[in-house]
Amino acid sequence: MEPIKSFDQLTAHLMTLKKRKRIAVVCANDPNTEYAITRAVEEGIAELLMIGDSSILDKYQALKKYPEYVKIIHIEDSDEAAREAVRIVREGGADILMKGIINTDNLLRAILDKEKGLLPQGKVLTHLSVMQIPTYDKLLFFSDAAVIPRPTLQQRIEMIWYAIHTCHSFGIEQPRISLIHCTEKVSAKFPHSLDYVNIVELAEAGEFGDVIIDGPLDVRTSCEKASGDIKGIASPIDGEADVLIFPNIESGNAFYKGVSLFANATMAGLLQGPVCPVVLPSRSDCGLSKYYSIAMACLTCNKD
Amino acid sequence: MEPIKSFDQLTAHLMTLKKRKRIAVVCANDPNTEYAITRAVEEGIAELLMIGDSSILDKYQALKKYPEYVKIIHIEDSDEAAREAVRIVREGGADILMKGIINTDNLLRAILDKEKGLLPQGKVLTHLSVMQIPTYDKLLFFSDAAVIPRPTLQQRIEMIWYAIHTCHSFGIEQPRISLIHCTEKVSAKFPHSLDYVNIVELAEAGEFGDVIIDGPLDVRTSCEKASGDIKGIASPIDGEADVLIFPNIESGNAFYKGVSLFANATMAGLLQGPVCPVVLPSRSDCGLSKYYSIAMACLTCNKD
Repeated sequence: MEPIKSFDQLTAHLMTLKKRKRIAVVCANDPNTEYAITRAVEEGIAELLMIGDSSILDKYQALKKYPEYVKIIHIEDSDEAAREAVRIVREGGADILMKGIINTDNLLRAILDKEKGLLPQGKVLTHLSVMQIPTYDKLLFFSDAAVIPRPTLQQRIEMIWYAIHTCHSFGIEQPRISLIHCTEKVSAKFPHSLDYVNIVELAEAGEFGDVIIDGPLDVRTSCEKASGDIKGIASPIDGEADVLIFPNIESGNAFYKGVSLFANATMAGLLQGPVCPVVLPSRSDCGLSKYYSIAMACLTCNKD
Repeated sequence: MEPIKSFDQLTAHLMTLKKRKRIAVVCANDPNTEYAITRAVEEGIAELLMIGDSSILDKYQALKKYPEYVKIIHIEDSDEAAREAVRIVREGGADILMKGIINTDNLLRAILDKEKGLLPQGKVLTHLSVMQIPTYDKLLFFSDAAVIPRPTLQQRIEMIWYAIHTCHSFGIEQPRISLIHCTEKVSAKFPHSLDYVNIVELAEAGEFGDVIIDGPLDVRTSCEKASGDIKGIASPIDGEADVLIFPNIESGNAFYKGVSLFANATMAGLLQGPVCPVVLPSRSDCGLSKYYSIAMACLTCNKD
């Protein structure tokens, strides 16, 4: 498989598979979600289990053309809808879970329920995003801009594993993973930079398989060869990072929102850790971003 | 004075003043510094005291045309050169201090010397940057991507004061200052968001004069009105922030490096706190960025 380097290549690849994944959508009651799920059905990559208000089909006329791929389960209460969607996924009735306009905390509560939820015991819940940036020549994955405020060493290691698995799904055989800091100096003042030393040692010992992991590196040195050259830094990342692991949620979030706004980047993202991909968009995500997140879920979903 | 909204407007404004500021440049031994200082002399905004290797004029031929505006003080040892530059500034012999290729820590040691340095007792040392982003319709100031890892409440207040003074120099009468976080929610899990509540209260009580301060806000809501509208957030910043105050150095740095790389932004920056503006560029800053930093220093320098 050739590496997927853009969202167009991602959707083209999915369409060649001619296989619909089943998405359980909770409270799909907004125009951007409508755009995303309708396009996924039209392009033959998904079928829908819509859990929530059953009057939705009257609003979403375009979906009426695909009765065989759209099933509606009427549940008025959004918390109950979330629990039912989670139950369906657990029992194998859906491959992917997606949030509509339900409050994130309410859906997370159903996902994190110890007995009836979707997160296996001991698994780390985190968020992995991927951006298509017009000024970068491939997709750029990064974690975690949304869930874990200040990851522990163990959580960082899990974040890296999720990123590696996702890169493999995208056909990237040897992912280049950059551990982000402000500079290239390790310092006890910044405990994450000490974690990075541990992680690079693990990587060099072969713990993560065929990957290139380096850090601490800053964002520019990770993604622009010239920056490293000027500073005299010889990193095996060589300015071509596939993945950026941020030190904390504030830095991941500032990067994501700054670059998406000012560099016209397009974004997709998934919760990592649950037994199935979970599409958990922000209210302000555009329809295209929600659609690409579905596509990312269809690609990385394990069930065939 | 009309607000200065671009670096072109900044340099045009300085040229109308027909007043040269005197810059003490320590170890100006690299092509990007040469570009910056030569242009500042040619455009009539600066004269130079070059402290370091006296063979420099043989290399920098263009400066030979301006003997009346270039003075060289030969000091071989770079630490000694730093101390001499600081001494000259203290005694009123220069308005601005600029770093060439001396190690940042070595210049900082001379600046921070309690008896012979440039930082008045009790003053907070921090860094203020300004970016010109092709996709934003005015200059965007932000702090602190370079000096204070995790500011205290008092340090955040000082950072805001420095930004306000600088905005006033740029002709921005009522600066809009956004206190950055991942979301708009205040949470004890994120102590900086509690600081923000204090700061907004101080601002509402008139403590900072005629400013608009709001937070916590994310980067998008701060700089794009549509983001706030979609999320139903009514902030007086209204998507038109002049200043972003970041919660920690990692987030400021990730924003700065991500946006400068991927959105082709141009940057300038100055140390804040010392008795005079200090231009302290990174090795990887381009010549234009060093030049705009000199221009920012000339504008914000108090001495007439």
